[in-house]
Parts: sequence; structure tokens; C-alpha cells
Amino acid sequence: MGKGGNSHEEEEENMAAWLVGLNTLKIQPFKLPPLGPHDVRVRMKAVGICGSDVHYLKTLRCADFVVKEPMVIGHECAGIIEEVGSEVKHLVPGDRVALEPGISCWRCDLCKDGRYNLCPEMKFFATPPVHGSLAHQVVHPADLCFKLPDNVSLEEGAMCEPLSVGVHACRRANVGPETNVLVMGAGPIGLVTMLAARAFGAPRIVIVDVDDNRLSVAKNLGADGIIKVSTNIQDVPEEVERICKEMEARVDVCFDCAGFNKTMTTALSATRAGGKVCLVGMGHNEMTVPLTPAAAREVDVIGIFRYRNTWPLCIEFIRSGKIDVKPLITHRFGFSQKEVEEAFETSAGGGSAIKVMFNL
Amino acid sequence: MGKGGNSHEEEEENMAAWLVGLNTLKIQPFKLPPLGPHDVRVRMKAVGICGSDVHYLKTLRCADFVVKEPMVIGHECAGIIEEVGSEVKHLVPGDRVALEPGISCWRCDLCKDGRYNLCPEMKFFATPPVHGSLAHQVVHPADLCFKLPDNVSLEEGAMCEPLSVGVHACRRANVGPETNVLVMGAGPIGLVTMLAARAFGAPRIVIVDVDDNRLSVAKNLGADGIIKVSTNIQDVPEEVERICKEMEARVDVCFDCAGFNKTMTTALSATRAGGKVCLVGMGHNEMTVPLTPAAAREVDVIGIFRYRNTWPLCIEFIRSGKIDVKPLITHRFGFSQKEVEEAFETSAGGGSAIKVMFNL
Amino acid sequence: MGKGGNSHEEEEENMAAWLVGLNTLKIQPFKLPPLGPHDVRVRMKAVGICGSDVHYLKTLRCADFVVKEPMVIGHECAGIIEEVGSEVKHLVPGDRVALEPGISCWRCDLCKDGRYNLCPEMKFFATPPVHGSLAHQVVHPADLCFKLPDNVSLEEGAMCEPLSVGVHACRRANVGPETNVLVMGAGPIGLVTMLAARAFGAPRIVIVDVDDNRLSVAKNLGADGIIKVSTNIQDVPEEVERICKEMEARVDVCFDCAGFNKTMTTALSATRAGGKVCLVGMGHNEMTVPLTPAAAREVDVIGIFRYRNTWPLCIEFIRSGKIDVKPLITHRFGFSQKEVEEAFETSAGGGSAIKVMFNL
Amino acid sequence: MGKGGNSHEEEEENMAAWLVGLNTLKIQPFKLPPLGPHDVRVRMKAVGICGSDVHYLKTLRCADFVVKEPMVIGHECAGIIEEVGSEVKHLVPGDRVALEPGISCWRCDLCKDGRYNLCPEMKFFATPPVHGSLAHQVVHPADLCFKLPDNVSLEEGAMCEPLSVGVHACRRANVGPETNVLVMGAGPIGLVTMLAARAFGAPRIVIVDVDDNRLSVAKNLGADGIIKVSTNIQDVPEEVERICKEMEARVDVCFDCAGFNKTMTTALSATRAGGKVCLVGMGHNEMTVPLTPAAAREVDVIGIFRYRNTWPLCIEFIRSGKIDVKPLITHRFGFSQKEVEEAFETSAGGGSAIKVMFNL
Repeated sequence: MGKGGNSHEEEEENMAAWLVGLNTLKIQPFKLPPLGPHDVRVRMKAVGICGSDVHYLKTLRCADFVVKEPMVIGHECAGIIEEVGSEVKHLVPGDRVALEPGISCWRCDLCKDGRYNLCPEMKFFATPPVHGSLAHQVVHPADLCFKLPDNVSLEEGAMCEPLSVGVHACRRANVGPETNVLVMGAGPIGLVTMLAARAFGAPRIVIVDVDDNRLSVAKNLGADGIIKVSTNIQDVPEEVERICKEMEARVDVCFDCAGFNKTMTTALSATRAGGKVCLVGMGHNEMTVPLTPAAAREVDVIGIFRYRNTWPLCIEFIRSGKIDVKPLITHRFGFSQKEVEEAFETSAGGGSAIKVMFNL
Repeated sequence: MGKGGNSHEEEEENMAAWLVGLNTLKIQPFKLPPLGPHDVRVRMKAVGICGSDVHYLKTLRCADFVVKEPMVIGHECAGIIEEVGSEVKHLVPGDRVALEPGISCWRCDLCKDGRYNLCPEMKFFATPPVHGSLAHQVVHPADLCFKLPDNVSLEEGAMCEPLSVGVHACRRANVGPETNVLVMGAGPIGLVTMLAARAFGAPRIVIVDVDDNRLSVAKNLGADGIIKVSTNIQDVPEEVERICKEMEARVDVCFDCAGFNKTMTTALSATRAGGKVCLVGMGHNEMTVPLTPAAAREVDVIGIFRYRNTWPLCIEFIRSGKIDVKPLITHRFGFSQKEVEEAFETSAGGGSAIKVMFNL
Repeated sequence: MGKGGNSHEEEEENMAAWLVGLNTLKIQPFKLPPLGPHDVRVRMKAVGICGSDVHYLKTLRCADFVVKEPMVIGHECAGIIEEVGSEVKHLVPGDRVALEPGISCWRCDLCKDGRYNLCPEMKFFATPPVHGSLAHQVVHPADLCFKLPDNVSLEEGAMCEPLSVGVHACRRANVGPETNVLVMGAGPIGLVTMLAARAFGAPRIVIVDVDDNRLSVAKNLGADGIIKVSTNIQDVPEEVERICKEMEARVDVCFDCAGFNKTMTTALSATRAGGKVCLVGMGHNEMTVPLTPAAAREVDVIGIFRYRNTWPLCIEFIRSGKIDVKPLITHRFGFSQKEVEEAFETSAGGGSAIKVMFNL
Repeated sequence: MGKGGNSHEEEEENMAAWLVGLNTLKIQPFKLPPLGPHDVRVRMKAVGICGSDVHYLKTLRCADFVVKEPMVIGHECAGIIEEVGSEVKHLVPGDRVALEPGISCWRCDLCKDGRYNLCPEMKFFATPPVHGSLAHQVVHPADLCFKLPDNVSLEEGAMCEPLSVGVHACRRANVGPETNVLVMGAGPIGLVTMLAARAFGAPRIVIVDVDDNRLSVAKNLGADGIIKVSTNIQDVPEEVERICKEMEARVDVCFDCAGFNKTMTTALSATRAGGKVCLVGMGHNEMTVPLTPAAAREVDVIGIFRYRNTWPLCIEFIRSGKIDVKPLITHRFGFSQKEVEEAFETSAGGGSAIKVMFNL
């Protein structure tokens, strides 16, 4: 029995949002696993909706993962510690924490080498067959729960998950105070990547999109330059010219946060010799792009998968004010059957929604 | 006047192989530039033919470079010092040297940062409008002339140039004693990359080609495994399976020394999560490849352009016997008009020719 | 109950060499912990004696660690799997394995960042209060047991532990085919570092000691040059001159495998601008050395602590013949009370003993 | 003849501050070398006094360099282009520029590898026998003259030189938004290192000194914490405790900007396992420090020598306001014999002087 003191009754009342079929979410009871000595039980307070959550809802799959049985959805989350396992020392009930969603095996080569995000045994919230965290309570390893400072809200804590993608991308591309950054795509991932690049010191950031509203949001969030582009691949040369002019310098690192033939072609063309293109977005599976001329300028294409060791830095960026994630939260919902459905519709609908957040 | 003592008469007799038009090489006089204080004058003794030389001969262009005026061809070379400039301290007449062909500006950001191979002002043997080194004599900066140990022949010295491509690729991909290497393509560049990977300590190297003879050569040169493949892209999954079985382990680094849709698709599919694909070959300009799933496994695509700081290591690899480049030299020619023509035909003809070498 | 089938009777007979007091080792029963799902039970077959084992025996302490209660000694070991936990998939009873001795927490920052050897919660064989492995049987995590190929003996498996120190040092100092290496000290650690540096491709290795016999051993094991030095610090300049002459090149990386004022002074002086000194030996705690002039040549001083992720590479080095550790095993003993005492005396006695090995 | 148009008369009037003997500076004519095709002639407008300048004045030596003949002093400088060589394209007369003082050979291994600051042939302003830049005019390579943006003053341009030391130290120690930084010593170098660390994103910086005034300056310049310490080495443990408490976290990187036994002992003790100590200050030549226990926690000791490729970043830091160097300029002098003497006395006198600047 852990340190804390919730009765079994309470635990049995635990409700969660289950993905039970195509386009069908149901709030249903979710039985918690037993609390291990290194685990904590967390009362969820803020859970955001990710594009992948919507994708699962609409198609029951995402990349190679297929939902075969009912699964609790959600993985961007923060909450309050209710109970801690017998060996947990750095957390106590009442602590406000943000949760890193993935549990890796720590026995494989990749885990031991510090690249645990690539662990083939990864158990990750709401990646089938693992249940997610859009629930009143979850049990999670204590070392994946990061205490929030007083001036960081639970919603901001939940935002550490999408922000982590940007932070990991910036780390892998080695963004720093000498890196002029181009971001292709001003959706949620493009925006968090932009915010992360700024926090890593990027002196100049230009962001590109097809949509005026998104560009306007990016501008308000701090982009130095915005470029509206077409979806016509013939326009790449002219658009690259505009990008470089707006950058007032070479593009050192480009993040393709869309992942289409045209965005990648632009990325490979606009980046300087010796620079890096980091592919963040997952638009097309197969791409037709001018890889050879880019390689012949030693432009490397860096891939990323989720993130690793990012929560402490995300929290520090938010705490210190280097990053303000609050403007990204455009819609808020409660945790009733009706609101869950509305929230996912809002997130799926595009429009002005950037991040849709549940307050539980 | 430099240290040495050749008369002007001798210098005026200097002959070189000029590319004067499509498919037309002529041995004609080549006036040497004056010897600067940091230059040396070298009597060429061994010059190899590179694929790019043949490409210029057949098309008057290579990548973005176009031959607009007659140009001396050749850039894989070694010779004997005839005269040294007034400030040259590490070489004397009679020294046998291998020549690094590219002179960078040392004033741009990339040069100062140690990536001089990307210098936009690079002056490179036989890259228009710069003359090459298939000539009786050339003048070259002394710091780009590397003295050969007694047990390294001038032909081996000339082989440092193609070998440098493999060495630079291995350095950029960080090949070492823990790196299982896959090489796509068993042509000259595939072979030098294989030899370099072995010298960098790669414990297991598998090489792939469509041609049995090439694979047989690769096997003789030390490949641990060889895989014959088709040109049909549908076969990729089955071939990847065979590759991984032959590797007996994960592919950590794959060098695509061909550069086609199929080779790159195979490379991206066969390489383990967190591994690297290094694009060396320049087959297709635009490629249609599954870049996104590879990026989502953090497989990075590394580009290379020529090489930097590779001669001392190449010479050491040859001196120590870690690499034997002699088997790569399959044909030898003298330096007459007729032989020059025959040599280029031999090199262009494919067949059993790997490296065609002039002995001047 | 795990997969396998040894009875409780057998387990209760398990005997181990206990350090029970100053200079006192006793073979006594050692009760094994229960086998967890990810654990294996291993019958020890080869256990080497390390300098730290001797140090514990002679002083009951090593660095900051103090033996306060009786402790099983030994940590360089290999054996045969007797039983595997329910979740173990890569091992079966009968497999011959080498054991990595340290169990880290996988919850702290350093573990998660891939530097698990620095884990503050590390549980390491025979580092108090954790028991060691000089026993008939031990229980250990399966992921720290590495299967030996057929051509690698159990004794060679046990040698992976000391070899790991050299491998980790070479990795941290980034030794490769361009690195001329100086090794200060030809004791066991100096020798394994030399062997590792050679396997990482170091083209030239010079080793320094005060003892002719040790130097002779080093020469036989493959040192390119050996230098006998004094213990008088006044001799450093002259000795550095001799070292550089013997090296025939700059010292790129120096491993100080002794760790005294004089060896470190020599190391800092002999290493080229931009090179690295790696401090492996732990002679003096406090050192008086010319750190500032070395720093002003950007000679970095790299520290190491044990190793991480080294077993697969050590096994591969031995399997492939790149490293032959057998000549290091100079003495062998059985596992009786008398022989244990003799073995430790032999190891402590210096003389010709390099590695003393128990065959159980 | 270069582009520009100053007559020989003007050039012959060029006056400079010559170090002609111990404690003796004289303003005397300084004949300029001819303008090469890649050179510029610069009218100096701001020249700062460095500790090394004072050291040369007081002792005629610094480290291994000895002043044997009269030498123009000064190397922290900025000015206005008067004339450009025939090949200079990025500068025109009238441009305001900051000057990087060292001319490296670009022919040695270190230059070619991007570590040109370690070039053994370096020609550096006011490092004997090379003349400095405290003169009305100097001739300098154009690629070492960096154009200042409109909002960066010439004095700020001159400050790029000392700031470069801090920037290079931060780069070598890999300071970023996750690096908690400790700075030992609040003198001019400690202060620029602190400013650079902040600009590289260090979230928390604690600075240590023996002097209340210096600490107060550091606090005003942005230190998060200041710690007054003694010169008694016995106090290290207690001071380390205070440092760690003030840091509120682990010390990831410590810059020892003093370079004494006590500062280095504190640095090695306060830095976390796996962290880095960067030795910037050059107090003691030989140091008595606990190197072994630090190495056994994999605390690396990083050396630095001057800087490389730092001017563009320094200018960007100043332009963007990430660094404000103006408060460091505490005293200003004109360029008369009397003022030159006073300026050096002021700089040598310690007290409140941080940076003494000449306005020419």
C-alpha cells in the first residue's frame, strides 16, 4: 500500500474517455492498475487533444499503430499527485505534476544509450494497445512525473508534451544563438517548434504557411518574418527567393513541420550548404524531393521521433517566461460525454483551433 | 625564383590533356602559372580517371558545372616535386607527393569553420573554369601536396583522391568498430567506401549490387557479405530481409553509393532506428523515397561533398596496409594522344574497368 | 518460478568468498535473492581479481567506499546461465555469458541521458554494501548478461570487465585511426587501454613505465614504442622529448593510467595543442600539475568512471581477434579457501602477475 | 593601388603607441605595410586595454612571449575603413568595423580543421614580434574586419574582443538553456563570460569573488547569485555548500576565470558528475588541485585559448541587446602621450576600472 490514502471505492469510480470504435468516444469506467513502489497515482486536471488523438478517432490508426480494442485516449496531460508508491521520494500527494507519457524498457541498446524514445518496447499513453490519460486518474511511474513550479499552471504543464516535440527537434538540429531558422508550416507543431527555436536562442525565425490566419498567429507569437506560399510546386524557386530575402541571412536550419513534397523541396532548397533540415511533420509517407543536390551541399536531413528528457527544460522555459504557451490554448472543455465529443470536433475542425484543452 | 632550378625552356614544353569539345581530348601545351612563395611545381607521374572526367568528356558538364572553354582534364594525381616556392619548408625537389585537388579561399565562414570543402570560392582541378592535372607538370599550393612514405607508390598516391570520398563519408557517418555497414553499389565509389569503412573498424560490411562481377570484386576486396538485387522497386522488402539476414545484425550505417530511388528506398528501410544513411552516389537528382517513416525512426540522411583533410589519413591507411588500393587499378595507359583516348574509352566502357590510371 | 529447474537444495549450497575483515577472506554460504522476471541465475565459471578487490582486502576501503559489513568480493566474471526469469527472452539455461557488474536506477537524469555509469544509485558488484560475484552462483539482471560467441572463452568473458575500462576511456577520448596514443603506465589498466586503443584504430601507440618487465610485456602485446622513465619529476622535459621522438608524430591523446604528479605532468606536456589527456589511473587524489599551460593549448583533461555499454564491443573485439586478452591472464586458481588466499596474495604481490583468474 | 584614395602623406603621419621598454610607452610614427589585394586600411576609433597589454608594459612578457624590440601595443579595436584592397568585395571606405586581431596561416592541420586559434604560425596584434593596433591606422585582412550594424557603436565593436573570450569559453563548454553556470572570479573576463553564458541561454548563473565591489558589479550585470569567498583553501567545502545552495541546482559548467589553486579546487568540487570545468583564467602556472576525484565523476577540464569565429556572434549579441557591454567601459581616454600613460595606469590600478577605452 502506497503513501497517500485513497480508498478502493474512489479508485473504482475512475472514469476515462474510451475510443470504442470509429468516430466513437465513450466516457466509461477505467480500472487502474495496482500502484507499484516507484509509481504515483495522479488526478488529471488538464489534458490536451493532439492531432494523433483525432487521427485515431477518425481512422482507428496512426502510422503503423492500429486500435484493435477499446482504448482510453489522451496523452498531453498534467495533474495532482494523489498517492505515491513506497519508494517514491521526490513527490508527495498534492504536488502538481506534468506527465511524460512514454514508459521505455531500459533494457535495450537504445534505452541504455540515452535514446529511449526509440525503444522498441515503449509503452506510450494512447498508442495501442496502451491506454491513455484522458481520465480522472492514472497510475504512472514517478520519474515521468515532473513537479510544476508555482508559477506554471496545470494547463501549461499539459502543454509540455507538444512543446517537447519542438524542443527535441531543436536539440537534434542543434539550434542555438547562431542558427537562423526556417519553419515550414504554422500549425500547432510548427508553432511549438518556433517557440522552442526562439528559446534556444535562434536570432531570426521565418515561418511559412499557406494560410493567412495561421501566419498571423505565428507573427503574434514572435516570428520575425512570415511568408505566405502556394501549394503549387512550381513556385518553389520564387518562394525560396522570398524566404531568403525575409531571412536577411542564410537558413541554417529548416524544420519541415508539414512533411509534403513541396515543403520538403522548399526546405532542401532554402537551407545553406552545411545546414540541416529537420523533418518533423508527417504529411506524405513517400516523398519526391531533390535529395541529391541537397546532399551534395552537405545539407543533412534529421529525423525526430517524439522526444526524450525534455520535461525539465520545457518547464524551465515556461517558468522563466522564455516561452509562453498560453496563447496556444484556444479552446477549453469540461469532461462530460457531450463536451468530449464537442472538443474533438473542435480540434478536428481546424479553423482557429490550435490547442483544445480539457479541464477535469 | 623558387628553390629548384628548372629553366623556362622546360616549362614551356609542358603538355596537358585538354578537353576541347564534346568527346574530344587533345594533348596540347599548357602554360604554367608563376610559382608563388607557398607553391610547388610537380611533375605528374600518376593520374587516374574519375567518373566526373568521363562525364565532362561525354556531356561537357557535371552537376551545375559547364565546360565553356577548353580545359585541362584530370584531378586524381601524384607526382614528384620539381621546384618549391621561397616559403615552402616541408618539401624539397625530388619528394614524391599526392595532390589534394581543391584550393579553397580561407576567408569565408565555411573555410574558417573547418568545412572548407563547401567553400563557394573553391578552385578545383578540372572543375570549370579551373584547369586539371593530367599534364606533365602543374603548379599547386605546397600545403595540398602530401609526401608519400617509401612504401606508398605514386599510383597509390593518386588513389588517395577517390579513397578520400570514402574516408569523408565514413567520417561524416561516424563509422567505427561498432558500426555494421551496408553499401549500396559496388562501383568504384562503393568499393572505396567499403575499404574505408573496414579501415575505420566496421566489424561487418555487406555490399549490394545488380552485377555479379562487381559483387565478386567486392567479395575479393573484403566484403563480409554480398547481395545481388534487381532493379525492380517492388523487390525492396524481400531484399531488405536478405540484407538483414546477411548482416547478422542491424544496419547501423548505410552508404548509398548509387543514388537511385530503389537504392535509397532500400537504404532507408534497412537502416535501424537511430542509424544513418549517407548519400554518396549522385544517380537521380530528384528522388521518390519513404523519407517520413525513416525520419520517424530518427534515421538521419547525411550528405557529403568531396572531402576535407583526408590525405594524411588515406596515406596512413595505405602505408599501414589497412587499405590496399592496388587491386582497384585495373588498367594503365601512357600519356600519348592515342592512349589518352583509349584510356577514356576504357573508363567509359564499364566492363571490368574499376580505375584507369595514366603513368606519365 | 523461472524457466530452468534447479532445486532449492542446490541454491542453498551456494558458496561465496566473503571479505569478513581486514586481510581476511572466508568461503561461506551466500544466500541468493529471489529470481525476478527479468533476472537470470548464473553459475560462475571465471572470476578475475581487480586492484580494487585487493584494495578492499588490504584496507576495507576504496575511494569513498567503506566495507562496514561482511561482503562477497569479486566483479570481473563470466558464467553459465542456470535459470532465467519469466520475462527473459534472449537467454536460455546453458548460455555462456559475461556479466556487467553495475545495476543503475534508470530513473535519474544521468541514467536517462545515457550516462548510467554515473548513476548515484548504482548497485555494483563488491562495492559496499553490494555483494560481489566470486561465488558459485549469482542472480543478476538478464540485460547485464551478454552471451559469448563460441570462440570466446569464459575467461575471456571475465576479461571484458577490465577491458571495458580501456574501451570506455578510448570512447571518451574519441580514439580512432588518426589518433596517436601515449599511455602512461604499463600495469593492467595501461595494458587494456593500449589494447583498446589499437582496436579503435590508433596508428601508433607509445607506452611509458618505470619498470622494464612491464614495458617488455607491453611491447609483446603490441606497443609500437616503449619508454622507460624515472620517478624524478625533473626528468619530465627530457622524457617528453624522448616520447615525442619515439612517437614520430604528435601525441593526440594521452591516457594517464597511473595518476601521479609526474605522469600527469608528462601527459599534459607531451600532448599536442587541441589534444586530450584522459585520466584513468587513480594514484594521487590531489595533484600538482601544470594545468594552465595545457589549458592554454586547449588540451582537455577527460575523466572516466568505469564504463557504459561496453560489453558488446569488448566481446566483438575478442571474437574478431582485434584484441587478444589471453596473454594478460598470468595466474589461475581454483575456488578453495586456500587457493582464494593464495590468489589474492599473488595479485597483491605485484611481480609478474597481470591478471589472476579463478576457475570455479 | 587599392580602392579608396588616401595619399602617402597621410599614411606617413600614422602614429601609434609603442612599448619601447619596461613601463615605457611612446607615441611614435608607425609605418604601415603595403595594402594587399585582400587587405583593408582602417582608421582606429576605439581601442580597449587588455590585461595582457598591461602585463607586457609591466614585465615585457606574457606567458611565453617576450618583447625584444619596440612593439606597437593594443588589440581590442574597432575603426572605420579608409581603403580596401583590389579584391575586397564586402567592405567599402566608410564602413564601421570591429577587428579580429589574429592572422592564422591556413596551411597547418589546425587551421584546416577549423581550430585556427591554435595555429602555431598565428600573427596576433601586440603579441611579439607582431605590432598591435593602438594606432591611428592599421592594415588588416578584410576577412578579419566585421561590419558593425547601425545600432552597435565603435566602442562596442572594440568590446567584441574581450567578449569573444567568454563566447569561445561558452561554446567549448557547450553552454545552453539547460546549463547552470558557476563563474569563479568577477574581473573583466569573469564578467564577459557571465554575459556570454546568459546570452547562450544559461538559466541560472552564480558568480564568486573575494571582492564586494566586483560582486556588486556582477549582480548589476545580471548574475542570479553572488558569493563572497575567502582566499583560504580550508574554506572550500563550506563555500561549495553555499554555492550549491545559491545555485538551487547542480553546477553543470564552471568557468574558472581566476586560475588559482583555490578557485580550481572549488570548481572541481562544485561541478556535478558529468559536468565541465572550463579553465579561462591564467593565475597559477602549476596548480595543486583534486583532479582525480573530479575525473572519477567524469568532470572534464576544458581549456581555451583566445577564440575563433566569434565576431559575428558577438556583434549579433550586442545588436540584439542580448548582451550589453557598455557598462563594462568604465574609463575613457584620448590618444595623447599623457592620456596613454594615464589610461594604462588606470587599467593597471585595479580599483573600479573594468575596461579602459581609448577614443582616437
